[in-house]
Amino acid sequence: MCVRSMWIVILLAGIGAAQDRPAPPPPVVSPEVQADRKVTFRIVAPKAQAVALSAGDILNLPKGGLQFTKGANGVWEATTEPVNPGAYRYRFVVDGVPVVDPRNALISESNTNVWSMVNVPGAEWMDAGKVPHGAVAEIPYLSSALGRYRRMHIYTPPGYELGKGKYPVFYLLHGAGDNDDAWTSVGRAGYILDNLIAAGKAKPMVIVMPAGHTSTAGGISGMDDYTKDFTQDVMPYVEKHYRVLKDRKSRAIAGLSMGGMQTLNISMSHLDQFAYIGVYSSGVFGMRRPAAPGAAAPAPAVPPEWEQQRLAMLDNPKLKPGLKLLWFATGKDDFLLGSTKATIAMLEKHGFKPVYEETTGGHTWVNWRIYLNEFAPKLFR
Amino acid sequence: MCVRSMWIVILLAGIGAAQDRPAPPPPVVSPEVQADRKVTFRIVAPKAQAVALSAGDILNLPKGGLQFTKGANGVWEATTEPVNPGAYRYRFVVDGVPVVDPRNALISESNTNVWSMVNVPGAEWMDAGKVPHGAVAEIPYLSSALGRYRRMHIYTPPGYELGKGKYPVFYLLHGAGDNDDAWTSVGRAGYILDNLIAAGKAKPMVIVMPAGHTSTAGGISGMDDYTKDFTQDVMPYVEKHYRVLKDRKSRAIAGLSMGGMQTLNISMSHLDQFAYIGVYSSGVFGMRRPAAPGAAAPAPAVPPEWEQQRLAMLDNPKLKPGLKLLWFATGKDDFLLGSTKATIAMLEKHGFKPVYEETTGGHTWVNWRIYLNEFAPKLFR
Repeated sequence: MCVRSMWIVILLAGIGAAQDRPAPPPPVVSPEVQADRKVTFRIVAPKAQAVALSAGDILNLPKGGLQFTKGANGVWEATTEPVNPGAYRYRFVVDGVPVVDPRNALISESNTNVWSMVNVPGAEWMDAGKVPHGAVAEIPYLSSALGRYRRMHIYTPPGYELGKGKYPVFYLLHGAGDNDDAWTSVGRAGYILDNLIAAGKAKPMVIVMPAGHTSTAGGISGMDDYTKDFTQDVMPYVEKHYRVLKDRKSRAIAGLSMGGMQTLNISMSHLDQFAYIGVYSSGVFGMRRPAAPGAAAPAPAVPPEWEQQRLAMLDNPKLKPGLKLLWFATGKDDFLLGSTKATIAMLEKHGFKPVYEETTGGHTWVNWRIYLNEFAPKLFR
Repeated sequence: MCVRSMWIVILLAGIGAAQDRPAPPPPVVSPEVQADRKVTFRIVAPKAQAVALSAGDILNLPKGGLQFTKGANGVWEATTEPVNPGAYRYRFVVDGVPVVDPRNALISESNTNVWSMVNVPGAEWMDAGKVPHGAVAEIPYLSSALGRYRRMHIYTPPGYELGKGKYPVFYLLHGAGDNDDAWTSVGRAGYILDNLIAAGKAKPMVIVMPAGHTSTAGGISGMDDYTKDFTQDVMPYVEKHYRVLKDRKSRAIAGLSMGGMQTLNISMSHLDQFAYIGVYSSGVFGMRRPAAPGAAAPAPAVPPEWEQQRLAMLDNPKLKPGLKLLWFATGKDDFLLGSTKATIAMLEKHGFKPVYEETTGGHTWVNWRIYLNEFAPKLFR
């Protein structure tokens, strides 16, 4: 790389001559998390007309967005109000172009691109604490359902690599704006579990975080074809290559948003295989059309065909006792709140007893980390 | 995330009304690898005055750089000549601002930021082939030497997670422009080893890819403090948490550029612990000053103090028989070629018998992947 070469050449040649040259400008630091948890973002863009921050998850941003000021040195800078502890995705928008922070190595992947990420410490339950840590691996696998290589992330708890024992397995699905990296990066799943396990609050478990999109075009993808990938390829791969328990009571599945609907699709078609089901900020969200162009959208409802296709399982009384937990959580401000409630009502109609927590907040990673931290301790008890 | 919300809202609300709206423009695809291995890069930047590509590793780029043309739709586009198979880092430079490709989820991390990455398939030895695949894990560990959390990547070969047997261990260090992700992303170490192991050409082994920088400021870092982090923290962590063999003949170490010098620093201070040593595009690169400002740089030479500090080990005849391989490879066009040769001469003076391969090419990942593919089969025989 020419950058590397330059550094070394500068180092080799430059030391003796340093006194003869003007001092280089101090490096531009971005992001900078201050002691009071304000975050400063900076970018060098001397020719830019406008710089903004795209960061939906960071709360306390002023209406109209964070205002950047341009310094005489071409550095644009803006500082937030104090931010709650957590991991946040962001990008600059420079003259309309989305720009990953050129001074930040920390990123979180989405389905179609990447975000910069800033981690604001201060919440012990998701910080990298002085506890034993697990490992999160990237695994390539050949999907027979989709006919191509795919990737999944797998969390193994502290001690797993020494080779002893079998573990229960928790399948954890991401949302439409994510890929299989998201639960690890912005979701901090590994750290959350490390902390829960160290405190004795959660059982050591393997967490499988598969890729949920079956297309790279964006939008909602992966319904029927995803169920096939999951059941034909992901689960068999995990059960063949990892020391996981293979009975129903040792299997959990949960997901957020699109992943919550996939969780319902998979688990309600294979209810004999899962004892713990979690749906975060989601439900079976329908795709009903407005009655006429311009008409108001209809109230959320589970599409009747979804129920019809799964009746044999939904109404099978033999499968109910083995279902240890059917857990929903959605925020009051979440645009899928109606779908959550409609789905819960539908499941109750079929004799299920879903547990529902309605929280504050909306459709953001702020909530999904909290939901994972609440859900994981309930598993495999 | 507001992006996710928008997608779902569009999906929920938009289906019925699609006929009433103009069709959206086709999505901008970037990068696009064509059948003849030409690569097209595209970015939407209607307000930009100038767009360029920063991509040191992609060969066959025209002198003066790839010329972008701006379409009427605000999309800038450029296409390379056919590119050799391999993984390549790149960024756009839009009006002077380095921009990670907004349409590409594939990235490779550096010490201070991230690169977009394009993978040009066609070289079986580093493609994701239909062979059993290992796992590459990210591991947080507390460095007592540096007083903070650090990360390493660890490759475990196919079958490791089932829990049987112990494996030899290969420590593989990155360069100054990288972080511990680099050997996995742009270096394709996991795929290279998967293919070698499947073909019976390399022994199954654990590969530890630690973080080499001890500062985030860029430049060359991590000499004495890095040796401390490596020997006090990285190696003990691996030997405590993984099923690895702990004798000299089951331990290898190699590195590229900065990592090659770190490899020499560590191995020549702990020669009793390593049987296989690889130095890619590197040597002990000196930091001698020019005689006077403006004078020509002196010929590369190993600093005498480097030898002095290690004389007891360099000249200990008892340690030589257990050293199975001391392997150097550097390209003819590599700016560290002189350092490689000076280091080899120094080691020969102390009775070592280094193996040296002088290859074509320069200081790039194109060579480092090849070197790994040549070096790994020689290990643990």
